[in-house]
Amino acid sequence: MDKKIPEETIIRLSYYLRALFYFLEENKKVVSSRQLASFLKISHHQLRKDLSYFGHFGKKGVGYSSERLIESIKEILGLERNWNACVVGFGNLGRALSSYKGFRDQGICIKTAFDNDKNKQNKNYDGIKVYSIEKMKSVVKKENISIAIVTVPKSSAKTIANLLYECGIRAILNFAPVKLDLPKEVILKDVDFSCQLSYLTYRLKLLERANLQ
Amino acid sequence: MDKKIPEETIIRLSYYLRALFYFLEENKKVVSSRQLASFLKISHHQLRKDLSYFGHFGKKGVGYSSERLIESIKEILGLERNWNACVVGFGNLGRALSSYKGFRDQGICIKTAFDNDKNKQNKNYDGIKVYSIEKMKSVVKKENISIAIVTVPKSSAKTIANLLYECGIRAILNFAPVKLDLPKEVILKDVDFSCQLSYLTYRLKLLERANLQ
Repeated sequence: MDKKIPEETIIRLSYYLRALFYFLEENKKVVSSRQLASFLKISHHQLRKDLSYFGHFGKKGVGYSSERLIESIKEILGLERNWNACVVGFGNLGRALSSYKGFRDQGICIKTAFDNDKNKQNKNYDGIKVYSIEKMKSVVKKENISIAIVTVPKSSAKTIANLLYECGIRAILNFAPVKLDLPKEVILKDVDFSCQLSYLTYRLKLLERANLQ
Repeated sequence: MDKKIPEETIIRLSYYLRALFYFLEENKKVVSSRQLASFLKISHHQLRKDLSYFGHFGKKGVGYSSERLIESIKEILGLERNWNACVVGFGNLGRALSSYKGFRDQGICIKTAFDNDKNKQNKNYDGIKVYSIEKMKSVVKKENISIAIVTVPKSSAKTIANLLYECGIRAILNFAPVKLDLPKEVILKDVDFSCQLSYLTYRLKLLERANLQ
């Protein structure tokens, strides 16, 4: 069954999670699929279809218990437990991600960072210790790290990815603008900010065209 | 027609663009829908469906000309021209985004940044001048800025978003973990790194379960 679940459904599940936290903050303990969908500007059919992959949630005509749906989605996404992660490349982006509060809220703990800049090594930055790349194997093992966040430059990303694989890492969030070629068993997710921005330029262009008419 | 095009199609178009640049770098001047789709690990039906919203591309049985499809997608996404952008909040993430090469490659030019930290103001960082928030209105006008990238803390994101609206900004890429409440005419895209990471934890959990069986 799992193989048929689209990646986009999984990504949307985490949007639902974020939205449900928001509803709970506003003290809305029960939320309908229409409310949740409208909050996220998607169709409620889509929302129901996404959730239907994983079972039955909520009561017909009543809605979902925010708390219970949060617990269910956390369990689906593997967020009912903690995961240890490391950041590779401790430049501006690496530093920003190391202290990103959203990770910790979801049970993802950045334990350490790696950088080949000697001036950064063996120092603590807001509780994150930076090690040399050479120490990766021993530190990954010692800190029980299963996720790597890669923010190194394009030129070294492939070497780093192979090294992470050798260290036993099987899940990589890649911010380097390069296609990493890794064995199939590695779970890889590329993040590209320019893709998000070009959604804005697409819509801006439509807007300008509409204003001209 | 435009209204019916799903947001995900637009986001995928920019993935296609990235992939086509990669094929062109490798000197592959013609690429089939299957090659392009397999590179991105999506179905070629999806790829063809996405492109079909915008017309007919490529030749049946031959494929797409990489160069021509790049030009077409750039035009669809409004990337055939340049756009000026600003970064609001010049912390680690703001700095990382200011120097993000991928933006410039797509014709998006970060002209300036705003921060309320006096120590950062009126200084140049790799060609980006940082101004006080108070100067936003005049600088946005002078620099002809149409896109804002918001990386301020959660607590000030709403105030900043309203200020940007008052300055005439109608497109916002928001990295602050908060739901911004802006007039409908504002094009808003939220970026949440934890959503990307929870795709990894989802797959890691499946992998662990499979290994246990």
